[in-house]
Amino acid sequence: MSVKFAVLGHGVVGSGVVELFYKNKKSIEKRAGTEMDIKYILDLRDFPDSPYHDKFTKDFNDILNDDEVTSVAECMGGVEPAFTFVKACLEKGKSVSTSNKELVAEKGDILLAAAKAHNCNFFFEASVGGAIPIIRPLHRCLAANDINKVAGILNGTTNFILTKMYNDNMSFADALKLAQELGYAEKDPTADVEGHDACRKICIISSLVFGKHVYPKYVYTKGISEVDLADVAAADILGHAIKLIASVRRLDDGRILPCVMPMLIPHENIMAGVSDVFNSVLVYGDGIDQAMFYGRGAGKLPTASAVLGDVIESVKHKITVFSQSWDSSDDNSFIAPVEELSTRWYFRVPADCDAVGEGAYTDDNGTSFITEEVLTFTQAADKAKALNALAYIPVMD
Amino acid sequence: MSVKFAVLGHGVVGSGVVELFYKNKKSIEKRAGTEMDIKYILDLRDFPDSPYHDKFTKDFNDILNDDEVTSVAECMGGVEPAFTFVKACLEKGKSVSTSNKELVAEKGDILLAAAKAHNCNFFFEASVGGAIPIIRPLHRCLAANDINKVAGILNGTTNFILTKMYNDNMSFADALKLAQELGYAEKDPTADVEGHDACRKICIISSLVFGKHVYPKYVYTKGISEVDLADVAAADILGHAIKLIASVRRLDDGRILPCVMPMLIPHENIMAGVSDVFNSVLVYGDGIDQAMFYGRGAGKLPTASAVLGDVIESVKHKITVFSQSWDSSDDNSFIAPVEELSTRWYFRVPADCDAVGEGAYTDDNGTSFITEEVLTFTQAADKAKALNALAYIPVMD
Repeated sequence: MSVKFAVLGHGVVGSGVVELFYKNKKSIEKRAGTEMDIKYILDLRDFPDSPYHDKFTKDFNDILNDDEVTSVAECMGGVEPAFTFVKACLEKGKSVSTSNKELVAEKGDILLAAAKAHNCNFFFEASVGGAIPIIRPLHRCLAANDINKVAGILNGTTNFILTKMYNDNMSFADALKLAQELGYAEKDPTADVEGHDACRKICIISSLVFGKHVYPKYVYTKGISEVDLADVAAADILGHAIKLIASVRRLDDGRILPCVMPMLIPHENIMAGVSDVFNSVLVYGDGIDQAMFYGRGAGKLPTASAVLGDVIESVKHKITVFSQSWDSSDDNSFIAPVEELSTRWYFRVPADCDAVGEGAYTDDNGTSFITEEVLTFTQAADKAKALNALAYIPVMD
Repeated sequence: MSVKFAVLGHGVVGSGVVELFYKNKKSIEKRAGTEMDIKYILDLRDFPDSPYHDKFTKDFNDILNDDEVTSVAECMGGVEPAFTFVKACLEKGKSVSTSNKELVAEKGDILLAAAKAHNCNFFFEASVGGAIPIIRPLHRCLAANDINKVAGILNGTTNFILTKMYNDNMSFADALKLAQELGYAEKDPTADVEGHDACRKICIISSLVFGKHVYPKYVYTKGISEVDLADVAAADILGHAIKLIASVRRLDDGRILPCVMPMLIPHENIMAGVSDVFNSVLVYGDGIDQAMFYGRGAGKLPTASAVLGDVIESVKHKITVFSQSWDSSDDNSFIAPVEELSTRWYFRVPADCDAVGEGAYTDDNGTSFITEEVLTFTQAADKAKALNALAYIPVMD
């Protein structure tokens, strides 16, 4: 018996799923333990030259109402109509694998509940870190751990820009322009540059690790558009790289603190060496101490690889994988505000300011130093004001 | 109903499994979807002060013949009696999770076949890379990929020694002594230092990825005892770190080439930043391009975390996970000899030698350079002889 699945959307990721599936069909079927084939590809556009043109449909109901289709790969992006389509599939008992981080970050709890109610699976490995296996390791491989912190470089566009600023002394504006020319950044780069994309991904990780849905709107998010070349250079001299870090930690009282912001990473930390468009996720647990996962966070085949890995899992799992789930949350009292973030801080102050710390570095752009003491976000803001600081950035602990 | 499992061996890893299980029992049971408890701990020694002293037994048959025990964690190490015990458990339908790389590298095919024949599972995530999830990602998360190369820093002891040589200009002998003092190296460090431990691990990875059992005796293995401080320093100036790399690649004709040897890694490669006792595994696939997994490769709780993760999986999986298996191999014709390894090479020759490449570096210890051209292992050995080379080491491509 051959298992039939459908691919929703024939954009970059969706066409990658089709391409990779037919390239590795034989070994995929061996790993799935059954023959497999794509029965439908949903897209409103026409693809007359595609070798699979006979599989295209513009009508979602063709897929929904075909009982032979037991698994669906959703690669459309955006909340609607993806949410309506995915929910309908799950309610018919068709497992869904998605690369759509916006969908999972906004509606994950509802879709996981629908999968559970209809004895199928909603998988989303591709929604965080592209090709990097992170969702399954978090709830399966590290299942014996009490995980208390996760920190990641979860957006390739901003990491590319920061790498160019660091390696080539390029300004933010020039590096962004280059990223756009190379196709790494959208025409409207807001979602990447201002941290919204990374925010969605840390919401998904936070929900999975801590068991309650974390909505993007409750997560402090600051992008990299204000990161100055002077800070990148000074941080380097002080032994650190600046990266856009999406992180979540559990506080002593049990609340969690998710946030997205540029942070200084010590050169000794393996995360500091994550360059260009690569992503990485560092996980802290009581058993493992720390583990890092690294790879391509975006792109056609890397993302398709993660979607297809999930499709294969959906074929193997006849029942709902309950360890990969979380509850809905009706309030946000379990989320601590960013004001409570406690860490050491980097400051850049006018060169003539004398209230500086040990090991300060002075150049034309001011005096830069890292505090010995741990300050809360609020205390750091107060200190920045008092020092008339030109910049201040937290240091990742 | 509560699932009962047994722990074979109460050494470093076995006692870690017991400790971590009771520490995180509640969340582990949530992830397993059932109550769980340890019913027996097997060890020939007495542990009268253990809070779990009533669970100890010296008789393996207590465990084997107790039908209530459905899952077993094997943390004894060595091939025998582990092999006999594990095989007996599997033949009774009890799933086994092991940290024992020697056992898997020598007998994996037999034990996987026994698990399949008796509808249970033989899991071994802990046998490679300690806390790092690598076995499950390789056969599950990356299932849509055609994997053609894996390269890893798979031994923490040698990586610690090489890090000390690099960071602190310490000689091999001094760094080994320090590693022994810190408990990172055994009194007899041969298995680590000469690469045998890393060899077992790359055998397990090779078997899993390419589907046929690869025995350690067929894998060229060279350790780090001949790595000279002069080469570590010169490689750094030439932009590379020296690491003990266990790797396997598929050649164009379909044969695979596994080997263990010191290699030069370019500083830009994320693997060059893997320091101290940390391990990492870099996987190359046609979908993902590359992905790296990083973490603690050894130690009580990190290894216990991986064993327990497998025990939880064994509780969730009622049937054999067939994607995690390989065939026995009666001959070794699918393994290419190391002589066919093709890559660029680092040479150190006497300072007065004039047959050197571009960008050479000369100091009191000789002239060091990296070839532009790709040479086979055999060609490199010939060139080394002709140049009267003091050292030659392959560069990881």
